[in-house]
Amino acid sequence: MDFFEAVNSRYSHKEAFLPGAVPLEHLEQIARAGIAAPSGGNSQCVRLVILPDRQSLRPLCDISPAIGLETAPAAIALFTDSSAQTGPLNFEMEDYAAACENMLLAATALGYAALWLDSPYFDKEKERAASALLNAPEGYTLRVVLPVGLPDGPGGRRKKLGYERRVYLKRFPAPFA
Amino acid sequence: MDFFEAVNSRYSHKEAFLPGAVPLEHLEQIARAGIAAPSGGNSQCVRLVILPDRQSLRPLCDISPAIGLETAPAAIALFTDSSAQTGPLNFEMEDYAAACENMLLAATALGYAALWLDSPYFDKEKERAASALLNAPEGYTLRVVLPVGLPDGPGGRRKKLGYERRVYLKRFPAPFA
Repeated sequence: MDFFEAVNSRYSHKEAFLPGAVPLEHLEQIARAGIAAPSGGNSQCVRLVILPDRQSLRPLCDISPAIGLETAPAAIALFTDSSAQTGPLNFEMEDYAAACENMLLAATALGYAALWLDSPYFDKEKERAASALLNAPEGYTLRVVLPVGLPDGPGGRRKKLGYERRVYLKRFPAPFA
Repeated sequence: MDFFEAVNSRYSHKEAFLPGAVPLEHLEQIARAGIAAPSGGNSQCVRLVILPDRQSLRPLCDISPAIGLETAPAAIALFTDSSAQTGPLNFEMEDYAAACENMLLAATALGYAALWLDSPYFDKEKERAASALLNAPEGYTLRVVLPVGLPDGPGGRRKKLGYERRVYLKRFPAPFA
């Protein structure tokens, strides 16, 4: 798919997924896009775990139910390794978000819907439980699990502000409204 | 350009740019990709300022010299508006990084090189000075300036870890090495 078509087609799928499997080859292609994202200080702190089927996803649902996790045929869990930082600054958030966005776009480019599902892991206890389930090494933090699949429904797209409310030429206007 | 070609061609251009201008239409297309990125809580806190020529870029170089800013024919400054957050959680970092990655990929898809140039603005005084220069409203933070242009040189690509060091199937192996 053309890059700009992928960017403009991507949306956060907040409804159920259809049960049809996602071929492992596609999940690997999405993961490759994720690790191709830029990394602050080239720490490459992002690590991915492909969950290719319901069997591997189901235990995560027991920790944090979410419609995406409960219906998706596959998902990719994204961790950051805090020990990977190469300098005094920590770029885990930037790295994680850029890798996540690459994977959402890659899923879209392959014809799937996906979701940046982070809220189940804001609860530190649930994050620790889900990390343990996936056997994450010490120092790894589970940031997001991206359910991937064909959408069952329109997905709950939200209204966006127009270009003229978000982009300016040369400087912000004064007075700013 | 095909999505996966854009992902695989993108790199952080850490050298000079050629002086040839970037058409405003291309800069706008890059900015549109930026604001098409996902946004936590749909706050849409990312705001962009297109710097379409050397004249608009030069004052930023006086605040923080950087080879990208000093040679690029154009750039896009990315701000987040902290007052835009819609709930108790703050997604400025995630939003900013996703929008930045979309723009880096968009620049690549249009045949340009670009750079995630954040380090000049880690210094709060310089960030404030650059924000004032662009007339940023109160509560806006300058996160990054992306120089965009044709590359003058290979760009200083860095070595990446292999897929097998970053992606796992079903769970992390035990023992983990």
